[in-house]
Amino acid sequence: MTRMDAAGLEAFLHGEFPQVDEHRFRVEEVRERFVRVRMPFHERHLRPGETISGPSLMTLADTAMYVAILAMIGRVPLAVTTNLSINFLRRPKPADVIAEARVLKLGKRLAVGDVALYSDGDPEMVAHATLTYSLPAQR
Amino acid sequence: MTRMDAAGLEAFLHGEFPQVDEHRFRVEEVRERFVRVRMPFHERHLRPGETISGPSLMTLADTAMYVAILAMIGRVPLAVTTNLSINFLRRPKPADVIAEARVLKLGKRLAVGDVALYSDGDPEMVAHATLTYSLPAQR
Amino acid sequence: MTRMDAAGLEAFLHGEFPQVDEHRFRVEEVRERFVRVRMPFHERHLRPGETISGPSLMTLADTAMYVAILAMIGRVPLAVTTNLSINFLRRPKPADVIAEARVLKLGKRLAVGDVALYSDGDPEMVAHATLTYSLPAQR
Amino acid sequence: MTRMDAAGLEAFLHGEFPQVDEHRFRVEEVRERFVRVRMPFHERHLRPGETISGPSLMTLADTAMYVAILAMIGRVPLAVTTNLSINFLRRPKPADVIAEARVLKLGKRLAVGDVALYSDGDPEMVAHATLTYSLPAQR
Repeated sequence: MTRMDAAGLEAFLHGEFPQVDEHRFRVEEVRERFVRVRMPFHERHLRPGETISGPSLMTLADTAMYVAILAMIGRVPLAVTTNLSINFLRRPKPADVIAEARVLKLGKRLAVGDVALYSDGDPEMVAHATLTYSLPAQR
Repeated sequence: MTRMDAAGLEAFLHGEFPQVDEHRFRVEEVRERFVRVRMPFHERHLRPGETISGPSLMTLADTAMYVAILAMIGRVPLAVTTNLSINFLRRPKPADVIAEARVLKLGKRLAVGDVALYSDGDPEMVAHATLTYSLPAQR
Repeated sequence: MTRMDAAGLEAFLHGEFPQVDEHRFRVEEVRERFVRVRMPFHERHLRPGETISGPSLMTLADTAMYVAILAMIGRVPLAVTTNLSINFLRRPKPADVIAEARVLKLGKRLAVGDVALYSDGDPEMVAHATLTYSLPAQR
Repeated sequence: MTRMDAAGLEAFLHGEFPQVDEHRFRVEEVRERFVRVRMPFHERHLRPGETISGPSLMTLADTAMYVAILAMIGRVPLAVTTNLSINFLRRPKPADVIAEARVLKLGKRLAVGDVALYSDGDPEMVAHATLTYSLPAQR
């Protein structure tokens, strides 16, 4: 069961994560332990060589995992990222990037998950991240 | 397509990875970009609290990814691990541990993959690792 | 010995990394295997709670390591980040952030280093990152 | 200030970490936020090619960080590793391996540190690890 749906999550994020506005992230799917978030293509994310910048991909991965945790525990603005590890696998195309975030563990104090990033329409992963969030003691 | 099957991989590993003998690892399944390796339960892996030691889990993850790469590129003893990152999620039971390794990228110089570790018979992941291997230039 | 000095590195980066302009990064010190880069404080990096955003810190760490590698091997625009792993340790103050990047290995194909991030004037590390860069074959 | 000295730490570890006996680890130095641990050379750690196995290095890094945390907080057997990320930089020589562990953060619930590994007598790092430990709530 999830506590928030895609529309509720998007609305909540606007005040919380300024980059949600800046990157126009869209929450496309919310299931138990899983969300899919889209980063629409925008020139601003480009690096020389027509590829999307690493910082944009890291921001997307971080946001997607935050959304996946919020979907399970509700509005907990104090969840903070403690670790992010990302492998850049292939140059993303100049296209939307899709993040599929999976919660591997939701404990009392820590949540751990991984995020697969894809260029829209291409089955090969462009990057893979694992993230740890510290959760507030009372919730 | 894979270049080596489960029996061939196990045979090759015996000379290469002494820990394959020590831990009696068994290669149970080999598919395109995927292998499953079993570490039979043995008292030696136990830590106080009846749980399986972190080093045993890391050895299993490392070996499983090596097997997955060998299955794709054939006998390349010079592939070496350059990075291993592991999240310990739950205490493993005193039981066999199953590693499911997935190759996310097989490039000319680097291979990247992740490994999910489970206690036999339990669907909750006990640990999740990502690994990078450096591949020999000529192969 | 280094192949580029602080002024040369800053000039080169402007065309290469758009975020150098956006964040107004300044290369403050360049030594063998070490650089220090400053991210001047700017409201744009703030998150709610008056702290500096994770993506800003990751961008700074990535840029500082790139600068450290360039200082050693000269203008090699094809060096690409293959892995970034960051631990967020303390909330940064609303102040400049200082990155101290150290090259741990400069091989033929891979460079590995770590980056310590500090709020200006505070000796406690706010974040610690390790990064791997893939280097072009010919250089 | 530290709460345990080198001899006390070694004695405590013998019951706690079976690998301390197996690898004959020696705690050589204990300072505020820093310890140095030695893994005496033994044939058992060798891999083909006369190099020391990755699992031995990971076990040493994990133990050294555990020792560094114990030195600061005293006998807390419930501290558990939640993340270990290691970069293998150079082939270790067939010699003792020295681990220098540094505590970067000691919070209420998490401790984070890094470990530099060296072949005895050689200033070049052979591996670098970062680790996170989860600490018991009451201590």
